Amino acid sequence: MDQIATTSSLADAIFRPRSIALIGASADPGKNTARAQRVLQKAGYTGRIIPVNPTRAEIFGEAAYPDIRAVPGPVDHAFLMVPPRAVEEAIAGCAERGVRVATIYSAGFAELGEAGRRAQERIVAIARAGGVRLIGPNCLGLVNVTDGVPITNNAAVEAEPLQPGPLGLVSQSGSMMGALLSRCRSRGLSFSKLVSVGNECDLGVGELAAMMVEDSATEAVLLFLETLRDAAALAAAARRAHALGKPVIAYKLGRSEVGRRIAVSHTGAMVGGDELADTFFRENGILRVDTLEGLVELPRLVMGRRPPKGRRVAVLTGTGGGAAMVVDRLGGLGIEVPPPPAAMREGLAAQGIGISDSPLIDLPMGGGKGQYTTVLQAIVASGHCDAVVAVLGSTARLRPTQVNENILSVYDGSKPLAVFCAPQADEALAICDAAGVAGFRTPESCADALNAFLSWRAPREVPAAEVEAARALLARYGARRLNEVEACAVFAALGIEGPGSRIVASGAGARGIEGPAAVKILSPDIAHKTEAGLVLLDRCGDQIPAAVEEVLQRARQAHPGANIEGVLVAPMQQGVAELILGFRNDPEVGPVVVLGLGGVAAELTRRTAVRLAPVTLETAREMIASIPELRLLTGFRNLPRGDVAALAEAIRALSQLAGLPAGMVSEAEINPLIIRGEGQGVVAVDGLIAQG
Amino acid sequence: MDQIATTSSLADAIFRPRSIALIGASADPGKNTARAQRVLQKAGYTGRIIPVNPTRAEIFGEAAYPDIRAVPGPVDHAFLMVPPRAVEEAIAGCAERGVRVATIYSAGFAELGEAGRRAQERIVAIARAGGVRLIGPNCLGLVNVTDGVPITNNAAVEAEPLQPGPLGLVSQSGSMMGALLSRCRSRGLSFSKLVSVGNECDLGVGELAAMMVEDSATEAVLLFLETLRDAAALAAAARRAHALGKPVIAYKLGRSEVGRRIAVSHTGAMVGGDELADTFFRENGILRVDTLEGLVELPRLVMGRRPPKGRRVAVLTGTGGGAAMVVDRLGGLGIEVPPPPAAMREGLAAQGIGISDSPLIDLPMGGGKGQYTTVLQAIVASGHCDAVVAVLGSTARLRPTQVNENILSVYDGSKPLAVFCAPQADEALAICDAAGVAGFRTPESCADALNAFLSWRAPREVPAAEVEAARALLARYGARRLNEVEACAVFAALGIEGPGSRIVASGAGARGIEGPAAVKILSPDIAHKTEAGLVLLDRCGDQIPAAVEEVLQRARQAHPGANIEGVLVAPMQQGVAELILGFRNDPEVGPVVVLGLGGVAAELTRRTAVRLAPVTLETAREMIASIPELRLLTGFRNLPRGDVAALAEAIRALSQLAGLPAGMVSEAEINPLIIRGEGQGVVAVDGLIAQG
Repeated sequence: MDQIATTSSLADAIFRPRSIALIGASADPGKNTARAQRVLQKAGYTGRIIPVNPTRAEIFGEAAYPDIRAVPGPVDHAFLMVPPRAVEEAIAGCAERGVRVATIYSAGFAELGEAGRRAQERIVAIARAGGVRLIGPNCLGLVNVTDGVPITNNAAVEAEPLQPGPLGLVSQSGSMMGALLSRCRSRGLSFSKLVSVGNECDLGVGELAAMMVEDSATEAVLLFLETLRDAAALAAAARRAHALGKPVIAYKLGRSEVGRRIAVSHTGAMVGGDELADTFFRENGILRVDTLEGLVELPRLVMGRRPPKGRRVAVLTGTGGGAAMVVDRLGGLGIEVPPPPAAMREGLAAQGIGISDSPLIDLPMGGGKGQYTTVLQAIVASGHCDAVVAVLGSTARLRPTQVNENILSVYDGSKPLAVFCAPQADEALAICDAAGVAGFRTPESCADALNAFLSWRAPREVPAAEVEAARALLARYGARRLNEVEACAVFAALGIEGPGSRIVASGAGARGIEGPAAVKILSPDIAHKTEAGLVLLDRCGDQIPAAVEEVLQRARQAHPGANIEGVLVAPMQQGVAELILGFRNDPEVGPVVVLGLGGVAAELTRRTAVRLAPVTLETAREMIASIPELRLLTGFRNLPRGDVAALAEAIRALSQLAGLPAGMVSEAEINPLIIRGEGQGVVAVDGLIAQG
Repeated sequence: MDQIATTSSLADAIFRPRSIALIGASADPGKNTARAQRVLQKAGYTGRIIPVNPTRAEIFGEAAYPDIRAVPGPVDHAFLMVPPRAVEEAIAGCAERGVRVATIYSAGFAELGEAGRRAQERIVAIARAGGVRLIGPNCLGLVNVTDGVPITNNAAVEAEPLQPGPLGLVSQSGSMMGALLSRCRSRGLSFSKLVSVGNECDLGVGELAAMMVEDSATEAVLLFLETLRDAAALAAAARRAHALGKPVIAYKLGRSEVGRRIAVSHTGAMVGGDELADTFFRENGILRVDTLEGLVELPRLVMGRRPPKGRRVAVLTGTGGGAAMVVDRLGGLGIEVPPPPAAMREGLAAQGIGISDSPLIDLPMGGGKGQYTTVLQAIVASGHCDAVVAVLGSTARLRPTQVNENILSVYDGSKPLAVFCAPQADEALAICDAAGVAGFRTPESCADALNAFLSWRAPREVPAAEVEAARALLARYGARRLNEVEACAVFAALGIEGPGSRIVASGAGARGIEGPAAVKILSPDIAHKTEAGLVLLDRCGDQIPAAVEEVLQRARQAHPGANIEGVLVAPMQQGVAELILGFRNDPEVGPVVVLGLGGVAAELTRRTAVRLAPVTLETAREMIASIPELRLLTGFRNLPRGDVAALAEAIRALSQLAGLPAGMVSEAEINPLIIRGEGQGVVAVDGLIAQG
């Protein structure tokens, strides 16, 4: 019936809508709410622009309507600029009119606290029931630069020319959308699509990144993140990006405690530790930069490339000090800067160019007379490095076009090349930018970008789960906190040896046990059992029934109403070390497995290794190796060796809990996990599991 | 006799010479060696320019001479551009002619290895004998911008206009002189004096920095360092700078192992660990930046200021994401970002401005209508912070002059203020630059500069040394490696309790000792005594003489030629922990004291605390607190407490070795130092001292 058909896909409704309602559009050009329409008109948007304003019949040449319900014909996308209290009603109208997507600029929701969070939930419920997908609230909108569709009232976006390019951006900070647009523009880098996601009440970073990954105009996706709200969706997008050969690059706040605190306060989301975020990025094939300039300068280094095999960089320079800054920082990031191999040095010597075996290839006289070029070609062709840095000194400032002769004319693109200019050298950088070669303004951003590239790995493969026995047991126990016997039974189902304990109801039941044994009350209602004298250690023979009676009597006296499920009698366990092995479903990144030291050492050092679960045996071994104290177990002087192989197997086994249906186990912990001598295995002495 | 008198001071001869000989000057303008004269002439140098060239009588309008010896009249300064093999002869000529200073551009000396080092030593000897002070070799010369005296043939320097400003620069990297000149210039910052020091065969960073500190045109001194060659002189310069209120700011390479390796290879100096350099800077009141841009952007934050009392920053913004990057990084550097105090919030509330208690003061709507200004004034006036960061969002790009209204118009300079612009905002930065307010281009350089400022402390006071007894004992022993008994006697002279051991010649001498005792052969010629069975532990009563005979017999059999000085009988010592306490004369930074864990823990963790010696009791306590495992000693659960007070006293005591005549003790180590329980002291069980 209508002339304008609705669009087909969600991505089209978001980025290429045929009609856009601007709810709350103003006719006063000085107002912020008038900008969205102006920006669309300036961009030459060819679809239908529908201002919605209760007091106007026409705004800037377009027919206006008092209410979204009054708009004739289909509406693909609504942009809401109304006060927060009016959002609910507007979304209800969108639902009624079959609007596919509503982007909510209005703020005043989850970012303000509990009342705002409830208001946001009401909006989501209405939208969901009505089939409307939401972006925001508290966002600055989005821009499809490729097709000239800016849906935003952001002044910073309005101020920049809409120059289409290969980068997608998903930003949790609205203001950083404009900041990155301007910073990239100053380096000749342009965008395909940009989205400010705000509170992510419905469509989040993951789903939107996935759309950019599928977008043919987008070659790399940048993420500016304050937190992770939909890790599973982002992981899926990153894996798809890897399959398509499109790098995903993240800058994430929250490396420090105060950084995490303010991220919480101003976006309405909870944030976890940074190590977990690092793990998440690494294991899903996302490149992470540490500096803002790295986010701008890295894309040219990695677009069209695959993750490298090694972490080795070769650095060529005609200027000592400038290059030394890069090398020093690369070293600090754990990147290898190997000396040039003998074969390469001999090859160059045959051409009359003598270079030393220093890791920094520093050419005398700035590498004039074509030497720089010859050596650069040799390095790019050499197998001893995974990336190359070419450092330029005063040449870059005094004769910027020499960048062409020295570098660009011979660079064949076969290996990532970073060009760093030691002086202020805007012109030389612009030449690199125009040639699509990664130029760097500071040694710090150069090293940061190289580190991101060299740390880049293909997404981790998920091992097959063997968890059916554990699942059946857990289903039988039901959704509650399991006691230590039940928990150890689940661990045993996963293949981790348990303490071999027995539950007895009275002293009589413990007769005939030889010992030495530990005797412990079994009750979900009594905490701090050791302190209350309800755990007795090292009991032998006849001492065991007596100890059972003793703890029963003490427990009944001290906790008359407690549910006492019996008394646990377990053989005393000896080993060479005590560890804590945990599993939990992290609210940000999903299932993780955590290995840490046990006992006093744990509280002092707080040294742990954490990985996304499930893990392979190889990853489990890496976790062990990452804790210095555990290296003792692989042999140190005449200290006894521990069964590290069995420990790795136990880590892998516990991590399989990640293969259970989502949320079945929220937390599991073996504490202590005792490591016996080499070849004698490990034993889960105590533990707990919380379901649901 | 001569019309031109010689200059009075060394600094004048270096920076304000009345006559400059250009030895090796070329008449071919295309040559590098022609540039020095051109640069001087362009700068309008009013002194006498004397080209020295064997084949010309005149160069570019100045009378030329075949040899420095042939030059009539006094010569204050010579600039050498001859091949390395001709340098020795030229310096001899300078000595003969009474030239005060020779700056040697020529390379090919210590930076190339052993032969070059010897050639360099010959030059130094000739110069010293003739009273010529040297800068270089392998340097790019120097520039006195204040008075228009450039003594350099560096193309990068020639290309920049000589705009006088308040910064002094001493650089160990020649090429970084030009790079910093251009980078500072792009930010409107200019220099008073710049020196490239090269191999520092005579005049080094310390002496030259000291001259800049005394220079009335210089308000801050920047150092670009690859190593430390004359720490004592640099320390003295920094202390003098503190007294005069002129900040000294260092960027130093060598944070990573590979960075140290290349620094060695390309400057001809040895380099130590970075922690020591950090200690050196901190304890001498030198600010250290970690980023290149920090070196450019920090000066305006600190010029004219004194070290702060605390480490607290307040951050104000009208744009969430941009400011969060700064806060996050500040947190990562251990800087406190406290929430605004209640009184300030109440005061602002009374003016109708509501701010939350978040550490980031994030004003709604970008802080328009004067709110930004009002809040900024309140923060600068508030006692809850030692520095302030004002973050600007899109305003900085779209309406750069608002920097004036929002910030510059109300800022009274009473507290350091850093302005960070989230977007690309060159114009806003230029406005800050012109106003002398510290503007920052990246969140990383902003946090780096603030960290340098907030870590800045007045130079450490050196405690009075009480070492006469130790000195006398050492003098009596003479310059050699002391045995454990002698070493412990020196430690005892410093006030550190010894093991109470006796030296016996035979079993008979050990009769009557009750034990338990350790018995050990005393011989400078036998290593690995424990492994050879020459140390026997836990002997009591009659076992002791037998043990003495046993070790004597074994030693004579296994080492027939060894000098055996007797057998040591020492009471067995018990304690709660074993440590290693060391003193050494570090080749770069001078005397240091090092505290580390003993035994297996030491080899595993390699965790040590190191400080410049001597240290105060307070510093000693900080060293103890910096090692997590030692916190155990101050009470943890029911573990026994150690005598931490006595440990601090022992650290202070050993560090007093720094008060001895230079080089008297090159190394001293107490290993193990046993810490007894609270109130029971510490005991030096074993140790060594190397003299000379």
